[in-house]
Amino acid sequence: MPKVTAEYRTGRREQILAAARLCFMRQGFHATSMQDLFKEVGLSSGAVYGYFASKDALIIAIAEDNMRDVVDMVHTIATRRTEDSLGDLLAAVVGMITERHSRDGLAGLAVQVWAEALSNPVVAERLDTLLSQLREDIAGIVADRQAAGFLTADVTGQGLASVLLAIIPGSILQLALIGPSALDGVPDTLRALWPEAAQAEAPQACS
Amino acid sequence: MPKVTAEYRTGRREQILAAARLCFMRQGFHATSMQDLFKEVGLSSGAVYGYFASKDALIIAIAEDNMRDVVDMVHTIATRRTEDSLGDLLAAVVGMITERHSRDGLAGLAVQVWAEALSNPVVAERLDTLLSQLREDIAGIVADRQAAGFLTADVTGQGLASVLLAIIPGSILQLALIGPSALDGVPDTLRALWPEAAQAEAPQACS
Repeated sequence: MPKVTAEYRTGRREQILAAARLCFMRQGFHATSMQDLFKEVGLSSGAVYGYFASKDALIIAIAEDNMRDVVDMVHTIATRRTEDSLGDLLAAVVGMITERHSRDGLAGLAVQVWAEALSNPVVAERLDTLLSQLREDIAGIVADRQAAGFLTADVTGQGLASVLLAIIPGSILQLALIGPSALDGVPDTLRALWPEAAQAEAPQACS
Repeated sequence: MPKVTAEYRTGRREQILAAARLCFMRQGFHATSMQDLFKEVGLSSGAVYGYFASKDALIIAIAEDNMRDVVDMVHTIATRRTEDSLGDLLAAVVGMITERHSRDGLAGLAVQVWAEALSNPVVAERLDTLLSQLREDIAGIVADRQAAGFLTADVTGQGLASVLLAIIPGSILQLALIGPSALDGVPDTLRALWPEAAQAEAPQACS
Protein backbone atom coordinates (compact mmCIF):
# COMPACT_ATOMS: atom_id res chain seq x y z
CA MET A 1 0.00 0.00 0.00
CA PRO A 2 1.42 3.44 -0.87
CA LYS A 3 1.79 5.86 2.01
CA VAL A 4 -1.10 8.34 1.87
CA THR A 5 -0.02 11.85 2.80
CA ALA A 6 -2.21 14.38 4.60
CA GLU A 7 -2.11 16.61 1.51
CA TYR A 8 -3.31 13.74 -0.66
CA ARG A 9 -6.24 13.12 1.69
CA THR A 10 -7.12 16.83 1.81
CA GLY A 11 -7.06 17.05 -1.99
CA ARG A 12 -9.22 13.95 -2.39
CA ARG A 13 -11.68 15.23 0.21
CA GLU A 14 -11.95 18.57 -1.65
CA GLN A 15 -12.44 16.72 -4.95
CA ILE A 16 -15.36 14.71 -3.50
CA LEU A 17 -16.90 17.83 -1.93
CA ALA A 18 -16.65 19.75 -5.23
CA ALA A 19 -18.45 16.91 -7.06
CA ALA A 20 -21.12 16.75 -4.31
CA ARG A 21 -21.69 20.52 -4.61
CA LEU A 22 -22.24 20.14 -8.36
CA CYS A 23 -24.73 17.27 -7.88
CA PHE A 24 -26.61 19.08 -5.08
CA MET A 25 -26.84 22.33 -7.06
CA ARG A 26 -28.13 20.46 -10.11
CA GLN A 27 -30.65 18.12 -8.45
CA GLY A 28 -31.02 19.17 -4.81
CA PHE A 29 -30.00 17.12 -1.75
CA HIS A 30 -32.96 14.75 -1.82
CA ALA A 31 -32.92 13.82 -5.50
CA THR A 32 -29.14 13.14 -5.47
CA SER A 33 -28.09 9.53 -4.82
CA MET A 34 -24.64 8.37 -3.72
CA GLN A 35 -24.45 6.63 -7.15
CA ASP A 36 -24.86 10.03 -8.85
CA LEU A 37 -21.93 11.26 -6.77
CA PHE A 38 -19.65 8.26 -7.55
CA LYS A 39 -20.30 8.90 -11.25
CA GLU A 40 -19.68 12.67 -10.98
CA VAL A 41 -16.40 12.34 -9.06
CA GLY A 42 -15.20 9.26 -11.00
CA LEU A 43 -14.31 7.26 -7.86
CA SER A 44 -15.50 3.93 -6.45
CA SER A 45 -18.00 3.78 -3.59
CA GLY A 46 -15.21 2.52 -1.30
CA ALA A 47 -12.99 5.50 -2.14
CA VAL A 48 -15.80 7.96 -1.33
CA TYR A 49 -16.98 6.19 1.86
CA GLY A 50 -13.40 6.38 3.16
CA TYR A 51 -13.99 10.12 3.46
CA PHE A 52 -17.73 10.53 4.00
CA ALA A 53 -19.86 7.84 5.64
CA SER A 54 -23.16 9.05 4.17
CA LYS A 55 -24.94 11.72 2.12
CA ASP A 56 -25.76 13.42 5.44
CA ALA A 57 -22.04 13.66 6.24
CA LEU A 58 -21.49 15.40 2.89
CA ILE A 59 -24.36 17.82 3.48
CA ILE A 60 -22.95 18.68 6.94
CA ALA A 61 -19.42 19.18 5.57
CA ILE A 62 -20.70 21.52 2.82
CA ALA A 63 -22.92 23.42 5.27
CA GLU A 64 -20.00 23.93 7.65
CA ASP A 65 -17.62 25.01 4.87
CA ASN A 66 -20.12 27.57 3.51
CA MET A 67 -21.04 28.98 6.91
CA ARG A 68 -17.42 29.17 8.02
CA ASP A 69 -16.57 31.01 4.80
CA VAL A 70 -19.30 33.58 5.48
CA VAL A 71 -18.14 33.97 9.12
CA ASP A 72 -14.54 34.41 7.87
CA MET A 73 -15.63 37.00 5.28
CA VAL A 74 -17.36 39.08 7.98
CA HIS A 75 -14.29 38.74 10.26
CA THR A 76 -11.78 39.68 7.56
CA ILE A 77 -13.75 42.67 6.32
CA ALA A 78 -14.39 43.97 9.85
CA THR A 79 -10.79 43.66 11.06
CA ARG A 80 -9.14 44.99 7.88
CA ARG A 81 -11.41 48.01 7.54
CA THR A 82 -11.71 49.43 11.04
CA GLU A 83 -12.21 52.97 9.69
CA ASP A 84 -15.25 52.02 7.59
CA SER A 85 -18.87 52.68 8.49
CA LEU A 86 -21.25 49.82 9.17
CA GLY A 87 -22.86 50.53 5.77
CA ASP A 88 -19.48 50.13 4.01
CA LEU A 89 -18.78 46.86 5.85
CA LEU A 90 -22.19 45.41 5.08
CA ALA A 91 -21.92 46.51 1.43
CA ALA A 92 -18.54 44.73 1.26
CA VAL A 93 -20.00 41.54 2.79
CA VAL A 94 -22.94 41.52 0.33
CA GLY A 95 -20.51 42.21 -2.55
CA MET A 96 -18.20 39.36 -1.50
CA ILE A 97 -21.11 36.91 -1.13
CA THR A 98 -22.43 37.90 -4.59
CA GLU A 99 -19.01 37.33 -6.14
CA ARG A 100 -18.61 33.99 -4.38
CA HIS A 101 -22.10 32.94 -5.53
CA SER A 102 -21.22 33.72 -9.16
CA ARG A 103 -18.17 31.48 -8.78
CA ASP A 104 -19.57 28.39 -7.03
CA GLY A 105 -23.35 28.75 -6.51
CA LEU A 106 -23.00 29.34 -2.74
CA ALA A 107 -26.54 30.73 -2.39
CA GLY A 108 -28.46 27.72 -3.72
CA LEU A 109 -26.57 25.36 -1.43
CA ALA A 110 -27.11 27.67 1.55
CA VAL A 111 -30.90 27.70 1.05
CA GLN A 112 -30.92 23.89 0.88
CA VAL A 113 -28.87 23.70 4.09
CA TRP A 114 -31.42 25.93 5.91
CA ALA A 115 -34.30 23.65 4.86
CA GLU A 116 -32.27 20.56 5.81
CA ALA A 117 -31.65 21.99 9.30
CA LEU A 118 -35.42 21.88 9.96
CA SER A 119 -35.53 18.09 9.83
CA ASN A 120 -31.89 17.10 10.47
CA PRO A 121 -30.78 17.76 14.11
CA VAL A 122 -27.05 17.45 13.30
CA VAL A 123 -27.23 20.11 10.57
CA ALA A 124 -29.41 22.24 12.89
CA GLU A 125 -26.84 22.08 15.70
CA ARG A 126 -23.89 23.02 13.45
CA LEU A 127 -25.83 25.85 11.86
CA ASP A 128 -26.85 27.10 15.30
CA THR A 129 -23.22 27.15 16.52
CA LEU A 130 -22.06 29.09 13.48
CA LEU A 131 -25.01 31.51 13.61
CA SER A 132 -24.25 32.26 17.29
CA GLN A 133 -20.63 32.92 16.36
CA LEU A 134 -21.71 35.27 13.55
CA ARG A 135 -24.14 37.03 15.91
CA GLU A 136 -21.37 37.61 18.49
CA ASP A 137 -18.97 38.90 15.83
CA ILE A 138 -21.57 41.31 14.49
CA ALA A 139 -22.58 42.50 17.99
CA GLY A 140 -18.87 43.25 18.62
CA ILE A 141 -18.56 45.19 15.36
CA VAL A 142 -21.71 47.17 16.21
CA ALA A 143 -20.35 48.02 19.69
CA ASP A 144 -17.02 49.18 18.18
CA ARG A 145 -18.82 51.40 15.65
CA GLN A 146 -21.03 52.85 18.40
CA ALA A 147 -17.99 53.60 20.58
CA ALA A 148 -16.38 55.36 17.56
CA GLY A 149 -19.52 57.53 17.12
CA PHE A 150 -20.55 55.96 13.80
CA LEU A 151 -23.88 54.68 15.14
CA THR A 152 -26.52 56.12 17.42
CA ALA A 153 -26.45 54.63 20.94
CA ASP A 154 -30.21 54.00 20.99
CA VAL A 155 -29.92 50.81 18.95
CA THR A 156 -28.75 47.80 20.98
CA GLY A 157 -25.88 45.68 19.69
CA GLN A 158 -28.04 42.54 19.87
CA GLY A 159 -31.00 44.13 18.06
CA LEU A 160 -28.85 45.50 15.26
CA ALA A 161 -26.95 42.20 15.01
CA SER A 162 -30.31 40.47 14.40
CA VAL A 163 -31.22 42.96 11.66
CA LEU A 164 -27.82 42.51 9.98
CA LEU A 165 -28.12 38.74 10.42
CA ALA A 166 -31.40 39.03 8.53
CA ILE A 167 -29.90 41.10 5.69
CA ILE A 168 -27.14 38.55 4.99
CA PRO A 169 -29.30 35.40 4.49
CA GLY A 170 -32.07 37.53 2.95
CA SER A 171 -29.56 38.64 0.31
CA ILE A 172 -28.41 35.03 -0.15
CA LEU A 173 -32.04 33.98 -0.75
CA GLN A 174 -32.50 36.63 -3.46
CA LEU A 175 -29.24 35.52 -5.12
CA ALA A 176 -30.45 31.91 -5.09
CA LEU A 177 -33.96 32.58 -6.40
CA ILE A 178 -33.44 35.53 -8.76
CA GLY A 179 -29.69 35.96 -9.26
CA PRO A 180 -27.23 38.83 -8.81
CA SER A 181 -29.56 41.34 -10.57
CA ALA A 182 -31.89 41.16 -7.52
CA LEU A 183 -29.16 42.89 -5.49
CA ASP A 184 -28.56 45.78 -7.93
CA GLY A 185 -28.24 48.94 -5.85
CA VAL A 186 -28.10 47.10 -2.52
CA PRO A 187 -24.46 47.94 -1.62
CA ASP A 188 -25.07 51.65 -2.42
CA THR A 189 -28.27 51.62 -0.36
CA LEU A 190 -26.49 50.05 2.63
CA ARG A 191 -23.77 52.72 2.43
CA ALA A 192 -26.44 55.47 2.29
CA LEU A 193 -28.43 53.97 5.19
CA TRP A 194 -25.45 53.73 7.54
CA PRO A 195 -23.03 56.36 6.24
CA GLU A 196 -19.52 56.86 7.51
CA ALA A 197 -19.36 58.90 10.71
CA ALA A 198 -22.97 60.06 10.27
CA GLN A 199 -23.34 60.72 13.99
CA ALA A 200 -20.10 62.67 14.22
CA GLU A 201 -20.96 64.93 11.26
CA ALA A 202 -24.44 65.97 12.35
CA PRO A 203 -23.40 68.47 15.06
CA GLN A 204 -20.77 70.08 12.77
CA ALA A 205 -23.48 70.99 10.26
CA CYS A 206 -25.12 73.17 12.93
CA SER A 207 -22.04 75.08 14.14
CA MET B 1 -75.16 12.30 -5.22
CA PRO B 2 -75.63 15.22 -2.81
CA LYS B 3 -75.09 18.66 -4.30
CA VAL B 4 -71.67 19.92 -3.22
CA THR B 5 -71.67 23.62 -2.41
CA ALA B 6 -68.76 25.97 -3.05
CA GLU B 7 -68.47 26.54 0.72
CA TYR B 8 -68.24 22.81 1.30
CA ARG B 9 -65.44 22.52 -1.24
CA THR B 10 -63.57 25.51 0.25
CA GLY B 11 -63.83 24.03 3.75
CA ARG B 12 -62.63 20.61 2.61
CA ARG B 13 -59.74 22.20 0.71
CA GLU B 14 -58.71 24.15 3.82
CA GLN B 15 -58.97 20.96 5.92
CA ILE B 16 -56.61 19.11 3.54
CA LEU B 17 -54.18 22.04 3.43
CA ALA B 18 -54.11 22.28 7.26
CA ALA B 19 -53.28 18.56 7.51
CA ALA B 20 -50.58 18.92 4.83
CA ARG B 21 -49.03 21.85 6.72
CA LEU B 22 -48.85 19.69 9.88
CA CYS B 23 -47.20 16.78 8.01
CA PHE B 24 -44.73 19.06 6.18
CA MET B 25 -43.77 20.89 9.39
CA ARG B 26 -43.20 17.60 11.20
CA GLN B 27 -41.35 15.66 8.51
CA GLY B 28 -40.45 18.05 5.70
CA PHE B 29 -41.80 17.93 2.12
CA HIS B 30 -39.61 15.07 0.94
CA ALA B 31 -40.14 12.65 3.83
CA THR B 32 -43.95 13.14 3.73
CA SER B 33 -45.88 10.63 1.60
CA MET B 34 -49.44 11.08 0.32
CA GLN B 35 -50.31 8.12 2.61
CA ASP B 36 -49.11 10.16 5.63
CA LEU B 37 -51.46 12.91 4.51
CA PHE B 38 -54.51 10.63 4.00
CA LYS B 39 -53.97 9.36 7.56
CA GLU B 40 -53.53 12.85 9.04
CA VAL B 41 -56.63 14.31 7.38
CA GLY B 42 -58.72 11.16 7.80
CA LEU B 43 -59.93 11.08 4.18
CA SER B 44 -59.59 8.54 1.36
CA SER B 45 -57.05 8.99 -1.42
CA GLY B 46 -59.93 9.70 -3.84
CA ALA B 47 -61.30 12.48 -1.63
CA VAL B 48 -57.88 14.17 -1.43
CA TYR B 49 -57.01 13.76 -5.15
CA GLY B 50 -60.31 15.48 -5.99
CA TYR B 51 -58.71 18.65 -4.62
CA PHE B 52 -54.99 18.21 -5.18
CA ALA B 53 -53.56 16.06 -7.97
CA SER B 54 -50.14 15.55 -6.31
CA LYS B 55 -47.85 16.43 -3.41
CA ASP B 56 -46.39 19.13 -5.68
CA ALA B 57 -49.85 20.71 -6.04
CA LEU B 58 -50.12 20.85 -2.23
CA ILE B 59 -46.67 22.40 -1.88
CA ILE B 60 -47.55 25.03 -4.50
CA ALA B 61 -50.89 25.83 -2.82
CA ILE B 62 -49.22 26.25 0.60
CA ALA B 63 -46.40 28.35 -0.90
CA GLU B 64 -48.93 30.64 -2.62
CA ASP B 65 -51.11 30.98 0.50
CA ASN B 66 -48.11 31.88 2.69
CA MET B 67 -46.61 34.33 0.24
CA ARG B 68 -49.98 35.97 -0.46
CA ASP B 69 -50.50 36.35 3.29
CA VAL B 70 -47.13 38.10 3.65
CA VAL B 71 -47.90 40.37 0.65
CA ASP B 72 -51.33 41.16 2.18
CA MET B 73 -49.75 41.92 5.59
CA VAL B 74 -47.35 44.42 3.98
CA HIS B 75 -50.22 45.98 1.97
CA THR B 76 -52.56 46.29 4.97
CA ILE B 77 -49.95 47.74 7.28
CA ALA B 78 -48.74 50.25 4.66
CA THR B 79 -52.21 51.51 3.66
CA ARG B 80 -53.65 51.68 7.19
CA ARG B 81 -50.69 53.48 8.69
CA THR B 82 -49.77 56.15 6.18
CA GLU B 83 -48.41 58.44 8.93
CA ASP B 84 -45.91 55.88 10.19
CA SER B 85 -42.19 55.87 9.43
CA LEU B 86 -40.62 53.08 7.41
CA GLY B 87 -39.12 51.74 10.67
CA ASP B 88 -42.57 51.54 12.28
CA LEU B 89 -44.00 49.74 9.23
CA LEU B 90 -41.18 47.25 9.05
CA ALA B 91 -41.37 46.64 12.82
CA ALA B 92 -45.11 45.96 12.41
CA VAL B 93 -44.47 43.51 9.54
CA VAL B 94 -41.82 41.61 11.55
CA GLY B 95 -44.15 41.59 14.58
CA MET B 96 -47.05 40.24 12.53
CA ILE B 97 -44.90 37.53 10.93
CA THR B 98 -43.60 36.48 14.38
CA GLU B 99 -47.15 36.24 15.73
CA ARG B 100 -48.32 34.27 12.69
CA HIS B 101 -45.34 31.91 13.03
CA SER B 102 -46.22 31.22 16.68
CA ARG B 103 -49.73 30.28 15.53
CA ASP B 104 -49.08 28.04 12.52
CA GLY B 105 -45.34 27.56 11.96
CA LEU B 106 -45.25 29.82 8.88
CA ALA B 107 -41.45 30.21 8.97
CA GLY B 108 -40.51 26.52 8.70
CA LEU B 109 -42.81 26.03 5.71
CA ALA B 110 -41.47 29.18 4.06
CA VAL B 111 -37.85 27.95 4.26
CA GLN B 112 -38.89 24.61 2.72
CA VAL B 113 -40.69 26.44 -0.10
CA TRP B 114 -37.53 28.44 -0.90
CA ALA B 115 -35.45 25.25 -1.15
CA GLU B 116 -38.17 23.58 -3.26
CA ALA B 117 -38.15 26.52 -5.70
CA LEU B 118 -34.52 25.69 -6.58
CA SER B 119 -35.44 22.35 -8.15
CA ASN B 120 -39.17 22.80 -8.94
CA PRO B 121 -39.80 25.26 -11.81
CA VAL B 122 -43.53 25.66 -11.01
CA VAL B 123 -42.82 26.68 -7.39
CA ALA B 124 -40.00 28.93 -8.66
CA GLU B 125 -42.32 30.73 -11.08
CA ARG B 126 -45.05 31.35 -8.48
CA LEU B 127 -42.52 32.53 -5.91
CA ASP B 128 -40.98 34.84 -8.49
CA THR B 129 -44.37 36.41 -9.35
CA LEU B 130 -45.17 37.04 -5.69
CA LEU B 131 -41.67 38.36 -4.92
CA SER B 132 -41.95 40.84 -7.81
CA GLN B 133 -45.31 41.98 -6.45
CA LEU B 134 -43.82 42.44 -2.97
CA ARG B 135 -40.87 44.34 -4.47
CA GLU B 136 -43.20 46.72 -6.34
CA ASP B 137 -45.33 47.31 -3.24
CA ILE B 138 -42.28 48.06 -1.13
CA ALA B 139 -40.76 50.34 -3.79
CA GLY B 140 -44.08 52.27 -3.80
CA ILE B 141 -44.07 52.57 0.00
CA VAL B 142 -40.45 53.79 -0.08
CA ALA B 143 -41.30 56.42 -2.74
CA ASP B 144 -44.28 57.65 -0.65
CA ARG B 145 -42.12 57.94 2.46
CA GLN B 146 -39.42 59.80 0.50
CA ALA B 147 -42.01 62.23 -0.92
CA ALA B 148 -43.26 62.84 2.66
CA GLY B 149 -39.70 63.64 3.80
CA PHE B 150 -39.34 60.55 6.02
CA LEU B 151 -36.43 59.16 4.04
CA THR B 152 -33.35 60.68 2.45
CA ALA B 153 -33.59 60.98 -1.36
CA ASP B 154 -30.11 59.44 -1.91
CA VAL B 155 -31.39 55.88 -1.47
CA THR B 156 -33.20 54.52 -4.53
CA GLY B 157 -36.61 52.91 -4.12
CA GLN B 158 -35.38 49.73 -5.80
CA GLY B 159 -32.24 49.47 -3.68
CA LEU B 160 -34.10 50.00 -0.42
CA ALA B 161 -36.83 47.59 -1.54
CA SER B 162 -34.11 44.92 -1.98
CA VAL B 163 -32.74 45.61 1.52
CA LEU B 164 -36.24 45.40 3.04
CA LEU B 165 -36.94 42.28 0.95
CA ALA B 166 -33.83 40.81 2.57
CA ILE B 167 -34.89 41.73 6.12
CA ILE B 168 -38.28 39.98 5.80
CA PRO B 169 -37.09 36.50 4.70
CA GLY B 170 -33.95 36.88 6.85
CA SER B 171 -36.24 37.33 9.86
CA ILE B 172 -38.35 34.36 8.76
CA LEU B 173 -35.19 32.23 8.58
CA GLN B 174 -34.20 33.16 12.15
CA LEU B 175 -37.74 32.35 13.35
CA ALA B 176 -37.55 28.96 11.64
CA LEU B 177 -34.08 27.99 12.89
CA ILE B 178 -33.92 29.62 16.35
CA GLY B 179 -37.45 30.78 17.20
CA PRO B 180 -39.01 34.11 18.24
CA SER B 181 -36.21 34.82 20.78
CA ALA B 182 -33.83 35.39 17.82
CA LEU B 183 -35.84 38.51 16.95
CA ASP B 184 -35.78 40.08 20.44
CA GLY B 185 -35.11 43.79 20.01
CA VAL B 186 -35.54 43.72 16.21
CA PRO B 187 -38.75 45.83 16.02
CA ASP B 188 -37.20 48.48 18.33
CA THR B 189 -34.00 48.49 16.26
CA LEU B 190 -35.95 48.95 13.01
CA ARG B 191 -37.85 51.88 14.54
CA ALA B 192 -34.56 53.44 15.70
CA LEU B 193 -32.87 52.89 12.32
CA TRP B 194 -35.65 54.54 10.30
CA PRO B 195 -37.32 56.89 12.77
CA GLU B 196 -40.47 58.86 12.07
CA ALA B 197 -39.85 62.07 10.12
CA ALA B 198 -36.11 61.86 10.80
CA GLN B 199 -35.28 63.94 7.69
CA ALA B 200 -37.86 66.59 8.49
CA GLU B 201 -36.54 67.03 12.05
CA ALA B 202 -32.87 67.43 11.19
CA PRO B 203 -33.04 71.02 9.81
CA GLN B 204 -35.23 72.18 12.73
CA ALA B 205 -32.50 71.23 15.20
CA CYS B 206 -30.19 73.81 13.55
CA SER B 207 -32.60 76.76 13.39
